[in-house]
Amino acid sequence: MAADRSQSAGIAASPSVTLLRDRLASGALDALTLVDSYIARIEAREAEVGAWAWFDPEFARAQARNLDAYRRSGRPLGRLHGLPVALKDVIDTAKIPTENGCVRDADRIPLRDAFVVERLKKEGAIIMGKTVTTELAFMHPGKTANPHNLAHTPGGSSQGSAAAVADGMVPLAIGTQTGGSIIRPASFCGVTGYKPTFGAIPRRGILAQSPTLDTVGVFASDPAGAALLAEILFGDDPEDSATALQPTPALHTAALSKPPIAPVFGFVKPPGWDTADQQMRSAFDELVDALGDQAFEMPLPAIFNDAAEQRKKINFAEMAYHYYPYARDMGDSLGQVTRDAIAEGNAVPARDYLSACDMPKLLNAALDEMLTRCDAILCPAATGPAPNGLETTGDPIFNGLWTLCGTPCITLPMLTSEEGLPMGVQLVAARDNDARLMLTAQWLFNWADGAEQ
Amino acid sequence: MAADRSQSAGIAASPSVTLLRDRLASGALDALTLVDSYIARIEAREAEVGAWAWFDPEFARAQARNLDAYRRSGRPLGRLHGLPVALKDVIDTAKIPTENGCVRDADRIPLRDAFVVERLKKEGAIIMGKTVTTELAFMHPGKTANPHNLAHTPGGSSQGSAAAVADGMVPLAIGTQTGGSIIRPASFCGVTGYKPTFGAIPRRGILAQSPTLDTVGVFASDPAGAALLAEILFGDDPEDSATALQPTPALHTAALSKPPIAPVFGFVKPPGWDTADQQMRSAFDELVDALGDQAFEMPLPAIFNDAAEQRKKINFAEMAYHYYPYARDMGDSLGQVTRDAIAEGNAVPARDYLSACDMPKLLNAALDEMLTRCDAILCPAATGPAPNGLETTGDPIFNGLWTLCGTPCITLPMLTSEEGLPMGVQLVAARDNDARLMLTAQWLFNWADGAEQ
Repeated sequence: MAADRSQSAGIAASPSVTLLRDRLASGALDALTLVDSYIARIEAREAEVGAWAWFDPEFARAQARNLDAYRRSGRPLGRLHGLPVALKDVIDTAKIPTENGCVRDADRIPLRDAFVVERLKKEGAIIMGKTVTTELAFMHPGKTANPHNLAHTPGGSSQGSAAAVADGMVPLAIGTQTGGSIIRPASFCGVTGYKPTFGAIPRRGILAQSPTLDTVGVFASDPAGAALLAEILFGDDPEDSATALQPTPALHTAALSKPPIAPVFGFVKPPGWDTADQQMRSAFDELVDALGDQAFEMPLPAIFNDAAEQRKKINFAEMAYHYYPYARDMGDSLGQVTRDAIAEGNAVPARDYLSACDMPKLLNAALDEMLTRCDAILCPAATGPAPNGLETTGDPIFNGLWTLCGTPCITLPMLTSEEGLPMGVQLVAARDNDARLMLTAQWLFNWADGAEQ
Repeated sequence: MAADRSQSAGIAASPSVTLLRDRLASGALDALTLVDSYIARIEAREAEVGAWAWFDPEFARAQARNLDAYRRSGRPLGRLHGLPVALKDVIDTAKIPTENGCVRDADRIPLRDAFVVERLKKEGAIIMGKTVTTELAFMHPGKTANPHNLAHTPGGSSQGSAAAVADGMVPLAIGTQTGGSIIRPASFCGVTGYKPTFGAIPRRGILAQSPTLDTVGVFASDPAGAALLAEILFGDDPEDSATALQPTPALHTAALSKPPIAPVFGFVKPPGWDTADQQMRSAFDELVDALGDQAFEMPLPAIFNDAAEQRKKINFAEMAYHYYPYARDMGDSLGQVTRDAIAEGNAVPARDYLSACDMPKLLNAALDEMLTRCDAILCPAATGPAPNGLETTGDPIFNGLWTLCGTPCITLPMLTSEEGLPMGVQLVAARDNDARLMLTAQWLFNWADGAEQ
């Protein structure tokens, strides 16, 4: 049951991002040497995996050379010095195409970097390139395949980001989640995916699909890597009213810390459990059994049964408004699944929309109480391994409820299906308890690896 | 043209609230003596004016006695020590009925004080009673008449608050505005009405009609009085997401200050001007003429022509959601105008609602630029004097656009119609420029009185 993250398709186990960071900072590793190794992997595998929407090896190398020169000058280094990061192609990059996975935005060049891109540059990261998104970050798939089995979907919508990290093309990537667009592809591709508390990372300069739900998150090989990247993206921005001025949690320190007492997990079978893949259900039974006293099952209150439907109302209504220009201009060249959702969104009455927007208050009242009884909720990240075929991106039913609640979630690549495909274990914490989630997640990740705790 | 606030219906000129505050604080005036004089006025006039939804003279006297004893003990006094304040009956008062002007809420007793009531008590104000609101703070009138002419409407929805201050029953009152519910009744009743920047005063514990628009404001005889009260109500509350932690402007100090240079007014003829009352239009021509170099006309961009319609979409859609239980339970016992608005709100698509919610950004971009060229926008507070009859509350067309923008507004009782009814002069400033507005408003108020500047 425990992960064997190196078994599939020539994918080597990724080095720890924390280790890379330390070697880059000490000068034991040059940024150019590192970036060249990732470029080699991309050049070897991109034709098959199709993770990149825009990639220019010389652009990556130029940044690496500048960073190496900067380090040699002895000045203080950024917290991501020399680490390559991939960006989902809905994140604006000044002077670099940002096409939102949509033909209407072909050759669109933003004037200004997104908030998260400004932060990356400030902290010395290398902008490795832009990764494939589904059309407008919804469900019409892009060109990416699952690195573990090219016939299977990598999930969506942050499919390029998940696949690039899974395939060892880049150690870190940024994505977004409105339904299940970080956790599901991370689960299908066998990497760590982390969706912080709603509003933790400002969305200025990122395609707005449904601002009540849109959340920025990250991909890495392990929780500590995700924490290292996410921590520098937390902040507030006057152009994103979901953000607020508040202290940034020390996520990376938390992930590297030993919990004062062994964490306890509340196992939840979310709506949709009964029809989910039998392999995944059995794997969870085993997992909960193996955790012994550290896991117990918690029922989810009945009010959660309606959460997926309510989340969809918000998503589709806001999408109908924000994607109106695409629907108006594109006609049949917009994917059928996107058109259908916009049509459904056009029909949502404002009163129902407002009612749905009030749901998170009720749901979180229940969750807050449940989360006083455990360190994290434990539940599947997806209904099973990545489905065969690239024409859909899989079912987000185990993700939407947490997106609606705005709770931080993380998926860990701990399980493997009979076909050798990864299956993610999702942990959920109370809003703003991201550091607690990281501490707990890294503990579970190490436990699954059999590491000394 | 300049105000003669004492001519009508036996209404005596109100003493300055600032002066009352100073005399109460020094002990020159007892709270009990003061409150007894207001009680006498209420007992003399309430049968005709009908300003109060709940009033108990012994409750007011008991507070006054406590406050007098407290003052004599030598402890530091609250900033409103001994000043009676009336509360629109949509503002929750623990253990005191709060009926929202609606039969469904007859004998409803809240468990908890609204945020503003907590603040009043902390600052030593006397809760004088609850003033009449239209049904659910919408347009179906309550029992209040205009103190200047009992056959005329006092306006709505904060009709009891405006009339009580106008009639000298109380020096200060609190109301709310979603369309024009502070500025219009203040204009009709001949008092100062002040609607602060949206989000400045927390709405926790106040009936929610349309949270995107609902704004708490105040009534007084002069701008300095309004500033004194409003200043202590500014704040932030985690239960009202429209509020934010930010410094409170020194409104009262600003109102008592002399502007460093004479203020300049940008005269605006808002949409609806051409069909407004001729008396009011002529009075504004005279006023602008009299202000000479200190006033110039500014055109309002065409985008404002649609503001009233967009505001209505937001108001009615949110009302349809928030008043759903009233519509469900009350049938024909809900006022026709309320039922019609809810029915209209039920039909607003979420997409149109979201589009309307984006309007303030565009409108304020234009306003912010206009307001760099003057100290305040000058425009009528209503289309004319209070209409004859109590069956409607008048036209809010000159108010809704500023409510939608969230800009601070104040109306000053500077004009009088041929029939002897007051007409308000409205000033509008940029969002969060409430102190600047107060400084400018008190200057104009003094100028109209012929006071030395």
